[in-house]
Amino acid sequence: MINPFFKNYGPFKIIDLLKDLKFTGIENLKEDLVNDIRDLNTAEKNHLTFFHSKKYHMHASKTKASYCITLKTLENYLPKECKSICVDNVLLTLSKITSKFYPESINDSFDNTVKKIEELNFENKILHGHNVLIGENVKIGKNCSIGHNTIIEKNVNIGSDCSIGSNVIIRNTIIEDGVSILDGCVIGKKGFGFFPNNENNLRYPHIGIVLIGKNSEIGCGSTIDRGSMSNTVIGKNTYLDNQIHVAHNNKIGDNCIIAGQVGFAGSSSLGNNVMIGGQAGISGHLKIGNNVQIGGGSGVIKDIPDNTKVMGYPSKNLRQFLKDNKW
Amino acid sequence: MINPFFKNYGPFKIIDLLKDLKFTGIENLKEDLVNDIRDLNTAEKNHLTFFHSKKYHMHASKTKASYCITLKTLENYLPKECKSICVDNVLLTLSKITSKFYPESINDSFDNTVKKIEELNFENKILHGHNVLIGENVKIGKNCSIGHNTIIEKNVNIGSDCSIGSNVIIRNTIIEDGVSILDGCVIGKKGFGFFPNNENNLRYPHIGIVLIGKNSEIGCGSTIDRGSMSNTVIGKNTYLDNQIHVAHNNKIGDNCIIAGQVGFAGSSSLGNNVMIGGQAGISGHLKIGNNVQIGGGSGVIKDIPDNTKVMGYPSKNLRQFLKDNKW
Amino acid sequence: MINPFFKNYGPFKIIDLLKDLKFTGIENLKEDLVNDIRDLNTAEKNHLTFFHSKKYHMHASKTKASYCITLKTLENYLPKECKSICVDNVLLTLSKITSKFYPESINDSFDNTVKKIEELNFENKILHGHNVLIGENVKIGKNCSIGHNTIIEKNVNIGSDCSIGSNVIIRNTIIEDGVSILDGCVIGKKGFGFFPNNENNLRYPHIGIVLIGKNSEIGCGSTIDRGSMSNTVIGKNTYLDNQIHVAHNNKIGDNCIIAGQVGFAGSSSLGNNVMIGGQAGISGHLKIGNNVQIGGGSGVIKDIPDNTKVMGYPSKNLRQFLKDNKW
Repeated sequence: MINPFFKNYGPFKIIDLLKDLKFTGIENLKEDLVNDIRDLNTAEKNHLTFFHSKKYHMHASKTKASYCITLKTLENYLPKECKSICVDNVLLTLSKITSKFYPESINDSFDNTVKKIEELNFENKILHGHNVLIGENVKIGKNCSIGHNTIIEKNVNIGSDCSIGSNVIIRNTIIEDGVSILDGCVIGKKGFGFFPNNENNLRYPHIGIVLIGKNSEIGCGSTIDRGSMSNTVIGKNTYLDNQIHVAHNNKIGDNCIIAGQVGFAGSSSLGNNVMIGGQAGISGHLKIGNNVQIGGGSGVIKDIPDNTKVMGYPSKNLRQFLKDNKW
Repeated sequence: MINPFFKNYGPFKIIDLLKDLKFTGIENLKEDLVNDIRDLNTAEKNHLTFFHSKKYHMHASKTKASYCITLKTLENYLPKECKSICVDNVLLTLSKITSKFYPESINDSFDNTVKKIEELNFENKILHGHNVLIGENVKIGKNCSIGHNTIIEKNVNIGSDCSIGSNVIIRNTIIEDGVSILDGCVIGKKGFGFFPNNENNLRYPHIGIVLIGKNSEIGCGSTIDRGSMSNTVIGKNTYLDNQIHVAHNNKIGDNCIIAGQVGFAGSSSLGNNVMIGGQAGISGHLKIGNNVQIGGGSGVIKDIPDNTKVMGYPSKNLRQFLKDNKW
Repeated sequence: MINPFFKNYGPFKIIDLLKDLKFTGIENLKEDLVNDIRDLNTAEKNHLTFFHSKKYHMHASKTKASYCITLKTLENYLPKECKSICVDNVLLTLSKITSKFYPESINDSFDNTVKKIEELNFENKILHGHNVLIGENVKIGKNCSIGHNTIIEKNVNIGSDCSIGSNVIIRNTIIEDGVSILDGCVIGKKGFGFFPNNENNLRYPHIGIVLIGKNSEIGCGSTIDRGSMSNTVIGKNTYLDNQIHVAHNNKIGDNCIIAGQVGFAGSSSLGNNVMIGGQAGISGHLKIGNNVQIGGGSGVIKDIPDNTKVMGYPSKNLRQFLKDNKW
């Protein structure tokens, strides 16, 4: 994951990261320094990664991480160069360690560093409405417009030729050239991730960002949450209609067309040229191929191969759906 | 119902309450004074209650109300101490009478009493954004933050350690300690209740409020309507994701987890530790037990007992759903 | 279509309209002047219309337009007085020509002509909140209220006795007397119409408006897009609950009741006295009759005759749905 926004408070000694946690296997590593925490694919030397489900064993076997939080039953999938740290609950441990590296990724209260755009040097460069607020670490390209009451909170890069509507809130987001964000969107807030706990749920750190590709459009009142350990991605020239919800870690491809009120549960990937009808729902952790068409109102709960048309709840092959629903 | 907010304009003489309405059975009661209007369970001596469906006969038989608007066919369920007033349409009569007791519960136009937070004595106590507006009869605890452009209209109590996002609108609501309300929520507005009428529907009074329990979180762009004759309740440590709609009178328990775009039609109750997947819909007037799990996209149209997993539209036992949808 | 808002930049010579486009059949028409572009039903003499699907042949045979963009295979349906211009892609050609007549219908960036209401002559006539912005060509009747942070952009007529909530955005809309628009709605923005194109989708002009009939109510957070070649219409005394999405060109009748989170895909028509339960979805280009009842969560993908109750996904007769889903 490439996240230019959150400050990495590392390196940390392993013994400091694991303080107050139960674990085994680190007798010889206590004093080792860890530079960062990454997922299996992007971790490098002196990084810590995590491996919590057999589903990811192919990625685990190729990780370049030096250390991995995992389960006793999974450690044999890891390459020899990667030293395992076995715990009872991988994700809970990950959450606690990530909070140490990136403490600023947890608090999502409103950004109180914003200033009126008139007080900043964007003035005269951007066509803007009344009551526009801009936070720290914000870059905006040429020929952009920003509507009334919109708040560009901290950690936002906006390319050239972008149109941001009114009443929009954005943070922790990179927007490429030519993108339109319509009125009332909320983009880049933490996802709906936490560990249930009977008195007070434990919030999960969200160190990912939102990336929106060139020439894409996000419809009115949509919400796109930033990723937890990876980014939430909207491809190029992809159009989302109104009232769409994209949860954390989803990767949506290029040239997709997604109709109103569609929802993405999180951590799924969509290929390119995917069309989705209104109100469809895409469950979490799925792989939807290229050139897929999903009928309106469908509930997708399994992977869909390339070039497939589906419909139904749960969704099935479109031909089968029509056959099963003759009238 | 305990609603500290709306002013009760009673007591009224029964004859004044029933002016212009058709009714029977009050020959000896005309001059009696009624102090308040309440539902069957919370009504006390000198209160008027209502009983419109046999479904509630157990509650009716135990009511402590002195008077009850009901149907001729139902009056025998009432205890002797409770005098029946028989009408053709209980709810319509109720609506008209309630409007006399609580005329301020009908008009939900914007609150024009609000002032800029800088003009009030909250200043220096609350971390707040630009353009924050606060209405009359608002209390806010210690260590709270309120984001930009947020409007806390009249009749709101907020506990300590709460985080209210930007672009939020709240009225007629009690929020306990440690609650997070994310950007763009609208909370405490009147519900979608009215009597259809061919030229101009008759709005139903909403004298209930919204109660949000300790440590709960309400996701971006969600709407929670206040109750009509009872309150809308969100329990403790219950997390709602983005774009959720909770209609009037729903009671949601503690430690529930409710994913994005779920909708509650109104007057249903959920137990504790209930998990609901994205885009599911819960019909009105249902009882969902404790520890229930409802799959994403489900349409729930009947009661669900404790410790049950359901999925489907209409929802059925999860095992049955999976068996019926093999592929 | 009657749209008083967008300026017509015509007349144009046919040869200028078709520049850079492929076509046949205009040898003798090149220099003819076209005054406007209209749909088959509303076009008159010296207007250009379009006919792209056999489905509309009855309308085509009666059009009063002088010119029609169509397919070679459809031109024989047109009356003799209407001269055909045959192209490969009717809608794409229509889009390009419409852009020439109504260039202002394409750009939907925020309205930078708005002024603070205090600077305009509405002051003292309208009960309004803080930070209300009003654009050019806005008319507002007597006894209206407009909530905080609301933006009435250009091209809006509001009748008397209307209540507009807070955080609302409206443009290109006519609102009749007695209408309530609740908090957070976005009304009158361009619809989700465009021609897919691998690098940069081509936006479709939306020259229609939104019409909202007398005494209707639009719930919090709803979005109503304006029409493309016709208007989006909400009838009289029709109530929409929260978080509803009405896409372009839908026509909804009088006295309808539409519960929360319902979505309309576009170009469908609903009769009068229609009731729709929460989260139902109505596909595009359908005809729903009078007095129809659609159960919550239904997915409607075919026409529904008058006086019918349906439920299900896809929706079927309610009796059949209940029979098929015994439990």
